[in-house]
Amino acid sequence: MTKEKITKSRVIKRTAAKEEPTVKFVALGGLEEIGRNMMFFEYEDEIVIIDAGLQFPEETTPGIDFIIPNVAYLETKKKNVKALIITHGHYDHIGAIPYIMEKIGNPPIYTTSLSKEIINKRQEEFPNVPKLDFEIVKAGEDRQLSKNFKARFFGVVHNIPEGIGIILETPVGKIVHPGEFKFDYDVEGNPRGLDTWKLVGEQKIHTLLLDSTGAEEPGWSMSERVVEAELEKIFKVAEGRIIVSTFASLLDRIAEIIKIAEKLKRKVFISGSSMKTNVQIARNLGFMKIEKDVILPLEDINKYRDDKILILCTGAQGEPQASMMKIASGEHPHIKTKRGDTVILSSSVIPGNERSVQVLRDDLARQGAIVYHYKMVDVHSSGHAPQEELKTVMKMVKPKFFIPIHGYYFMRWRNAQLAQEAISLNPEETVITDNGQIVLITKDSIRNTDESVPAFYVMVDGLGVGDVGEVVLRDRRVLAQEGMVVIIVTLDRHTGRFLKNPDIISRGFIYLKENKELVEETRKKIRHLISRIPFSQEPDADYIKSLIRDQVGQFLYKKTKRRPMVLPVVIEV
Amino acid sequence: MTKEKITKSRVIKRTAAKEEPTVKFVALGGLEEIGRNMMFFEYEDEIVIIDAGLQFPEETTPGIDFIIPNVAYLETKKKNVKALIITHGHYDHIGAIPYIMEKIGNPPIYTTSLSKEIINKRQEEFPNVPKLDFEIVKAGEDRQLSKNFKARFFGVVHNIPEGIGIILETPVGKIVHPGEFKFDYDVEGNPRGLDTWKLVGEQKIHTLLLDSTGAEEPGWSMSERVVEAELEKIFKVAEGRIIVSTFASLLDRIAEIIKIAEKLKRKVFISGSSMKTNVQIARNLGFMKIEKDVILPLEDINKYRDDKILILCTGAQGEPQASMMKIASGEHPHIKTKRGDTVILSSSVIPGNERSVQVLRDDLARQGAIVYHYKMVDVHSSGHAPQEELKTVMKMVKPKFFIPIHGYYFMRWRNAQLAQEAISLNPEETVITDNGQIVLITKDSIRNTDESVPAFYVMVDGLGVGDVGEVVLRDRRVLAQEGMVVIIVTLDRHTGRFLKNPDIISRGFIYLKENKELVEETRKKIRHLISRIPFSQEPDADYIKSLIRDQVGQFLYKKTKRRPMVLPVVIEV
Repeated sequence: MTKEKITKSRVIKRTAAKEEPTVKFVALGGLEEIGRNMMFFEYEDEIVIIDAGLQFPEETTPGIDFIIPNVAYLETKKKNVKALIITHGHYDHIGAIPYIMEKIGNPPIYTTSLSKEIINKRQEEFPNVPKLDFEIVKAGEDRQLSKNFKARFFGVVHNIPEGIGIILETPVGKIVHPGEFKFDYDVEGNPRGLDTWKLVGEQKIHTLLLDSTGAEEPGWSMSERVVEAELEKIFKVAEGRIIVSTFASLLDRIAEIIKIAEKLKRKVFISGSSMKTNVQIARNLGFMKIEKDVILPLEDINKYRDDKILILCTGAQGEPQASMMKIASGEHPHIKTKRGDTVILSSSVIPGNERSVQVLRDDLARQGAIVYHYKMVDVHSSGHAPQEELKTVMKMVKPKFFIPIHGYYFMRWRNAQLAQEAISLNPEETVITDNGQIVLITKDSIRNTDESVPAFYVMVDGLGVGDVGEVVLRDRRVLAQEGMVVIIVTLDRHTGRFLKNPDIISRGFIYLKENKELVEETRKKIRHLISRIPFSQEPDADYIKSLIRDQVGQFLYKKTKRRPMVLPVVIEV
Repeated sequence: MTKEKITKSRVIKRTAAKEEPTVKFVALGGLEEIGRNMMFFEYEDEIVIIDAGLQFPEETTPGIDFIIPNVAYLETKKKNVKALIITHGHYDHIGAIPYIMEKIGNPPIYTTSLSKEIINKRQEEFPNVPKLDFEIVKAGEDRQLSKNFKARFFGVVHNIPEGIGIILETPVGKIVHPGEFKFDYDVEGNPRGLDTWKLVGEQKIHTLLLDSTGAEEPGWSMSERVVEAELEKIFKVAEGRIIVSTFASLLDRIAEIIKIAEKLKRKVFISGSSMKTNVQIARNLGFMKIEKDVILPLEDINKYRDDKILILCTGAQGEPQASMMKIASGEHPHIKTKRGDTVILSSSVIPGNERSVQVLRDDLARQGAIVYHYKMVDVHSSGHAPQEELKTVMKMVKPKFFIPIHGYYFMRWRNAQLAQEAISLNPEETVITDNGQIVLITKDSIRNTDESVPAFYVMVDGLGVGDVGEVVLRDRRVLAQEGMVVIIVTLDRHTGRFLKNPDIISRGFIYLKENKELVEETRKKIRHLISRIPFSQEPDADYIKSLIRDQVGQFLYKKTKRRPMVLPVVIEV
């Protein structure tokens, strides 16, 4: 091939590339876990982001406060970031904002007024970050986000008010991200608001992105009307105080509970600062209409008869620091459980919290409280659309392509299967992607690539963001399993002789005070080890350390069948 | 009152006490947890024990292998222990045997032949414990256990063969402990074996003890026939290999699976030594009748076509060391997952294992396997009677008193409620007791006392039994959260001056190599602290240590908002 020809073919390629506009889609989180939801679309020099959430720690990340998305890629292109759209005010969608906004160039945040207030309230805890630039949007409105991206917002029902979905108009077509949603039902049990989905479906949708959290659950959502009716039934037969515990973020549920209390002439006392704050925000914005003397300060609770009291509190997951657990354990300053209390845990149990919720229920029942929870009666409904609702949306939106988002691989795989069943998409038209993986979208195609951007965990621990890495976590896990033994040998730097008996300290291994014999044997072992090193010159600390680590480690394993972390220290004086 | 009268009234009391025989009942475990089942009855100088199980570790007991019952009380009375009855061969009922038998005087073990074989198999891992003395019993038989205690055994259906229940004849009346059970159903869905309960009920039962594990589950058990049918349906449509993972102890389920495989002309390959052992024991005793060439060695698996293969393996809970996870992760020597495999996880998820099961399912689905689990189809049924079955037994046995056993307080509270509903017992007639609490049973009464025997956790960790206590566990928990920092100051023993710069090592806190500045600041802080101590004589090591612990702890918290364990060491040379 001549040089000329090569050049020509390159030119052709470049032209072809130009003729076929391609949008990049990348999820930075939310695909391998529940939480840390954040994804972006990129076209030429423009980037639009949807959500910036946090993820709560897991068993494998002990001691971590939470995990946020990795924005390393966006940091390098911060000038291109034109918009951050927030679908709703839950922490798994807004929680990373204080940590990442500066890094991504502090772009305007497009969201609804309630979400704005919740974001701003949290921002107060971070006085040193730059002020946020909000663009308030409402369902039904449009915004030109940049030259190439335009967003139309539509309202969805979730368990917090003012959730929004987005139709993102891009150079390759319209992409729908409905945020998180469930169906709402009228009193006859018919789904409401289907016309919204119909309108979306009339717009020739290229790709639909859909939350997979409920994709393993068969059927339809339990209506909040059922939950409401069930709660009212329980409230009516309660003779003593009523204590309802739920998530502070379930604002719709909280509004329902207050409404029923008002109807039954009970005063409402709120415990838990996040719940107080959220109720205040919702009242200020007009999402809760409550008479003046219904919600009263906790300090006044003793002025009312038990059957006039309803306590609303956080902590239905058995979190040790939340109000419900403090009430149960007698540590709450104003409220102690007593015989005849009716306690309702109005939430499901998040995997990993089973044991603490069990402890909570045991404590309450022991003290004579009548306890109801979601497995006994219908006092909770999930905020995530289950299978039939997902399929209904697919059928109404009729996309050409489908990308399941939010949730573990298996859930997304199920969601993709649902799309194949419901709207007869081919497997290649339902793209299951991974965190960080670059997906290329053209007018007529969508495909996973082998390329990716950094998407690994960024961990927040105290003031540190990203400074706890795999090494530190691995150490924490090892320490938790078998503890550690520090061995300090103090040697004469000239002769290599012991200047004193080896010092041994240990934590989480065995209780040394009760195992003096083992300590003595270990000391003997160390002295023996070092005595056998032929010293010609000054001691080789690294060699001594590795000798102690190996030999003492083996020795302790033989004696105890445990493998504590052995940390040798050589002090040369 | 004259002296004579006092003496007389005492005599009368003593006589009265003699006239009213009292049996002590104590549960040493199983009441605050799932597992560690062990309880005993004591009358005068005779003790009869039922079960001796282990409990698997919890989040609050990191690094522990498992937890066994505390037998301190029985140890002091080992001569009185006349019998240990084992209801069935699951580890939460037999697992403590190797650790406690010698301590409680190695009493005869009354159990069925299958349970004996399982116990003996495990005993092989403990070559240094005394030989066990078994008394094989069958359903329908009686045994005089001692002068005052006689046992009649009856058969119950559980998910392992040869479960037995006991009618214990005591000086105060007959006490029924049915072990663990569920109902079995015929093809029409009618419960089978109700006549056994009827016969029990004809015997004027004083007290019924009943497993509470299923007391929160409404309705009736799912029949194993349904599970069987569902499995067969899935097996029939599978085009590639079938991999079924379940508990090694679910012998009935395993037998069913092999039976269906045989029918569909698939060869069975078993992976997992516990499952192999159990199948071998069950075959030897005639509980599984399988043709000779159905179960084949794993090494031969490649000689068969995929659609002729069924793999039975352990690890449905996502345990990292079990076969299923190794197959999924590609670490199994003979089997790797491939596209077209049908994988069935035939067990429910034990609370705490949700995350690892999720990882397992994700891994399998990623590799193209078709995965079924109990939430998608009926491929598992619990071994514990749910509410309607519990109530049926209560109604048929008609006891005067009821003690809910096995399971958390809330479950036992629910079980007591069921007894109050089903057979109109008063709350005082349904006794909810705690681990270690002494319950006194007379002919006409049963009551909790404030007295108790030691029942606190005995933890097994490696070779140590009971040497890991609260202190060690607390340290492990702290180390897991924020790690630790060891600070070594080497001082001249005469002047109190530094002989070298303070040494700092840390694990699980922050990665020191990347935080050199903080290390330097900490060293400076330490030097400053010690320089301010006025030395008149030799350094006071305890004072220096507590100074470093407090001040450096605060300093690190201020800098990082983390609280690592600070371990100061003062070396005086």
